[in-house]
Amino acid sequence: QSSVTVYGIADVWFGSAKSTVGGVSVRDTLLESGGVNSSRWGIKGSEDLGGGLKANFVLEQGFNLDDGSSKDLATKLNGDDATGSAAFSRQSYVGFSGGFGEVKLGKMWTAYDDVNGASDAVFDSKLSPMNWIFASTGYNSNPGNSIYYATPTFGGFAGAVSYSLGEDKTTTLSASSIASYNLTYAAGPLAVQFGYQVEDNNTFANDAKFTRLGATYDFGIAKLYATYGKVTNVGHDTTFDAKEYQIGVDYPVTSALTLSASYAKSDDDRSNGAFEESRKGYGIGASYTLSKRTFLYGGYTSNKFTNNGTADDKLNILAVGVQHRF
Amino acid sequence: QSSVTVYGIADVWFGSAKSTVGGVSVRDTLLESGGVNSSRWGIKGSEDLGGGLKANFVLEQGFNLDDGSSKDLATKLNGDDATGSAAFSRQSYVGFSGGFGEVKLGKMWTAYDDVNGASDAVFDSKLSPMNWIFASTGYNSNPGNSIYYATPTFGGFAGAVSYSLGEDKTTTLSASSIASYNLTYAAGPLAVQFGYQVEDNNTFANDAKFTRLGATYDFGIAKLYATYGKVTNVGHDTTFDAKEYQIGVDYPVTSALTLSASYAKSDDDRSNGAFEESRKGYGIGASYTLSKRTFLYGGYTSNKFTNNGTADDKLNILAVGVQHRF
Amino acid sequence: QSSVTVYGIADVWFGSAKSTVGGVSVRDTLLESGGVNSSRWGIKGSEDLGGGLKANFVLEQGFNLDDGSSKDLATKLNGDDATGSAAFSRQSYVGFSGGFGEVKLGKMWTAYDDVNGASDAVFDSKLSPMNWIFASTGYNSNPGNSIYYATPTFGGFAGAVSYSLGEDKTTTLSASSIASYNLTYAAGPLAVQFGYQVEDNNTFANDAKFTRLGATYDFGIAKLYATYGKVTNVGHDTTFDAKEYQIGVDYPVTSALTLSASYAKSDDDRSNGAFEESRKGYGIGASYTLSKRTFLYGGYTSNKFTNNGTADDKLNILAVGVQHRF
Repeated sequence: QSSVTVYGIADVWFGSAKSTVGGVSVRDTLLESGGVNSSRWGIKGSEDLGGGLKANFVLEQGFNLDDGSSKDLATKLNGDDATGSAAFSRQSYVGFSGGFGEVKLGKMWTAYDDVNGASDAVFDSKLSPMNWIFASTGYNSNPGNSIYYATPTFGGFAGAVSYSLGEDKTTTLSASSIASYNLTYAAGPLAVQFGYQVEDNNTFANDAKFTRLGATYDFGIAKLYATYGKVTNVGHDTTFDAKEYQIGVDYPVTSALTLSASYAKSDDDRSNGAFEESRKGYGIGASYTLSKRTFLYGGYTSNKFTNNGTADDKLNILAVGVQHRF
Repeated sequence: QSSVTVYGIADVWFGSAKSTVGGVSVRDTLLESGGVNSSRWGIKGSEDLGGGLKANFVLEQGFNLDDGSSKDLATKLNGDDATGSAAFSRQSYVGFSGGFGEVKLGKMWTAYDDVNGASDAVFDSKLSPMNWIFASTGYNSNPGNSIYYATPTFGGFAGAVSYSLGEDKTTTLSASSIASYNLTYAAGPLAVQFGYQVEDNNTFANDAKFTRLGATYDFGIAKLYATYGKVTNVGHDTTFDAKEYQIGVDYPVTSALTLSASYAKSDDDRSNGAFEESRKGYGIGASYTLSKRTFLYGGYTSNKFTNNGTADDKLNILAVGVQHRF
Repeated sequence: QSSVTVYGIADVWFGSAKSTVGGVSVRDTLLESGGVNSSRWGIKGSEDLGGGLKANFVLEQGFNLDDGSSKDLATKLNGDDATGSAAFSRQSYVGFSGGFGEVKLGKMWTAYDDVNGASDAVFDSKLSPMNWIFASTGYNSNPGNSIYYATPTFGGFAGAVSYSLGEDKTTTLSASSIASYNLTYAAGPLAVQFGYQVEDNNTFANDAKFTRLGATYDFGIAKLYATYGKVTNVGHDTTFDAKEYQIGVDYPVTSALTLSASYAKSDDDRSNGAFEESRKGYGIGASYTLSKRTFLYGGYTSNKFTNNGTADDKLNILAVGVQHRF
C-alpha cells in the first residue's frame, strides 16, 4: 500500500572545547551530536501522478545523538508558529513536483537557507568559523505555515521563493511574515548563490534583512570557497547592521581524504555610537570516507569575539567524529 | 525478522478564516494542518498465529503538518490517564483478531468514536459544520488504559464496546471510567450507526452521556447523510443538556469529482433557567481525486453561535487543500 | 539507498495492584505498559565497510503502550546530560563492530546494565521481586554522552566497559562521570555475570558504587537463578550502604509453557545509626508462547518494606499480559 523511505543521519563527535567568557576559561571534554550535519531521522515518499507530476512528502525530526534528546520547536516567527514539542522539527511538508518546478506546503527550509552554507568551507560544519561568528546565519531557517516554490533550472540558473505566514493578525496589527528568495547559477567548475530573507515581526517596527552571496570554483587540484554576508537591522534594531565574509579551500589528497581550511571575519556596524563587536576565526578539517554512507572527520576551530575595553571572548574546539547516513 | 508498515496522512490547507467574538472580527490568512483528516504517521503490523488468529498492533502519532508540532496528550480521563508528551497520541495498542471479532488493549478510538462522523457530509472535515457546532462531538475520543472488543458482522449487524480505566481509586472515591458502545447496520445502499458513551469522572457527581444516531443512503446519483446527537449532563452538569442534528448530501459529478453540502443545528437545553446558546452552520465542499493516495479539496463553511442579548459569534472558513496518504 | 529496520515491542498487562503506604491500602484495577519488557519502537541498521568491519546505529524510543505517552529523559547524570523531551529515550548511538569487538558512541545501556537482570527469574519482569525491592537496580541505566566498548568472546569470557561524560566542569569542580564495567562467562549450562558501576556526581563528595554478581545454571528439567547486589554510598551518602540477593527457578512444562518463581531480600546498612529499612518479596509467573514474536504471561508478586516502629508498606500485583515483538 505504501512506498515510504525511513532515512536519517547519525553524526557524533568527541572532543575538547575551551570557552573563555569574561576572562574566565573552562576546558571541557565532550561527546556531542552533529559535528558536520545535525542528526536527524525522517520519513519521505513520492507518488507518480502521471504526466510527469509527482506528489511528495517529507517528515523530518532533529535529535541529539549524544543523549537522545529531541530538537524541539524554537520560536521561529511571531504569531501562530509553533514552539514546544516537535514531531518533525526540521521539515514537515507535502507538495508537488514536475516540469513547472516544485511546490511545498508546510514547514521547510527557506529559500535563503538553501544557499546559506553552500560556499562555506570545512564542510559547513561545527569546525567552520562562519557557523560560530557570522550574524547572517542567525535567520529563521525553517518557519512553519510556509509555502515554497522552486523553479526548474534554465541554462544553469535556478531560483526559489518561500513565504511564511504569521497567522497573528489582530484588529490593530497586520500579520508577521518571512519572505525569502534565492538565485543560483552553476556551470562546470563555477557555482554562485545569492540569497535574501526579510523577517517581518509585527511586534517590531523594522524588518530584519539577511543577505548572502557565495561562490565556489573547483580547480580540480583544489576548490575555492568565498562567502559574503550582511544583516540589516540585527534583532529588528534599525541602528544595528553587520557585515562579514568567509574564504576557504578544499584540497582532495586522495579520493577518500579531503583537507579543508576556512577563515571568517564579521563586524558590527552601529549607527547610534554603541560599541561594535568584531569577530574572527579560522578552522581546519579533514574528512575520510569509509563507504558511501559513512565517513570520519576531525579538525580544529578557533574563534575570537573582540569586546570593547574587556578581554576577548574565545571558543576553541578540537574534534574527531563519525557520520553515518541511512 | 519484522513485518512493519510505516504509514500516515499528510493533509494541509490554505485559506482565510474570519472569526467574530464579542462583536470583534479578525480575518486571518492561514496555512493549517488537517483539513479533511488529521495529519498522522504510524507503525503497524500483523502476525498470523494460525487457526485464523492474528496478533495486531498499531502505534499512531498525530502532528500538525503546517509547523511540525506534535499533538500531545490532552487530559482525557481523570486519574492516571496520561497528559503531556506523546509518543503515540492517536492510537497505541496490541490485540488479537479472528473469527470471534477483535480485541484491542491500550489506547484506541472508543466505540462511540467509531460511528461519530460516519454520517457527516462534506467529508467529515473542517468544512463540515457539525465539527464546529455540535456538543456531542466533545467526548473523549481515545482515552488510555482501555479495552476494546468488536464483534464480527452478523447479517449486516455489528457492534463494539470499549471500557477505559481511570486507575484513580482512592480510599474514598471509586475509579473514573469511560464506557462506550456502538451498533451498526449496513446492507446495500443503507448504513445506520448508533453510539453511546458514558463518561464517569470521579470528581463529579454526574456522568456525562453522549448519544449518536446516524444514517446514510446511497441513491447512486447522490448520497444522503443524516445525524442526530444528544449530550446529557454537558460538562457533568445535571442541569445542562444539548440536542442537535445534521443533514447533508454528496453528489458525485465524475468518478474523480465529488460535491458535498451539509447543514447542522444544535441547541442547549438548560433546566436551571440559564441562557441556552444555539448554534447553526452550513458547509459546502468539493474533492478531486488525483490518484489512489492523493486528492485536492476545497470549500466554505459558515457557523453562527447565538448568544443571549449580545451579538452572535461567527466563524467562516474558505479553504483549499491537499491530502496525501502514504 | 537505505537498509533500515523499524522494530519494537508492544507489551501490555491487565491486573490488580494493592498498595499499602503508611497503613492505608488502595487496590486499583489497571491496564499498564511493559509487564515483561518496556514497550519501545526503534530504527536500526548496519553497513558493511569491508574487512569484517561494520558501521551500526540504533535509535530507540520508550513509550507507554497503555496511553501512548512518551518516556522522556529523566535526570541521568549531573551536568549536560539531557532531561526533557526525548526523541530516543532508550538508545541513540552510532558505532563500529568487527574482530576487535564493538564500539558505540552516544547513549546506550551501561556495561553494568548489560548484566543487571541476566540472573533474575520470573522473566526479569514487573512480576520479579528484585525489580521492586533491590537498591542495586537504582543505577543510571543509559546516561548520554557515553562511549562503550565490548570485547569479543575469548573461551567463554567477554567483557565491556562504558564511560559517560558529565560535560559539567567548572573553574572549581571537575566533571561528573559514570564508569561501568562487566565481565561475563558462559559455557554449556553455566552463565556467570559480574558488573560494577561508579557514579561520580560533582555536586557530591562521594561516589555511589553498584555491584552485581549473578549466575544461572540450566539443568534441562529446570534452570536456577542466583543474584547478589550491593550499593556503596546509596544516594552518594557515605554512611548508607545496601546488600541484597535473589534466587529463582524456571520450570519448562512444555516447549510453550514455562513456570518461574523468585525470592528476593534486601537490607540497608547504615553506619550512622539511622533506621535500616529491609525489603523482601516473592514472585511467581508463567509464560505461554503463541508464536515466535508473541507470548502471553501472568503471575503474582508480593513485596514488603519493613519500616521502624510503623506498619510495613506493601505492594502486591496480580497480572495477565501479552507481549508482541515486531
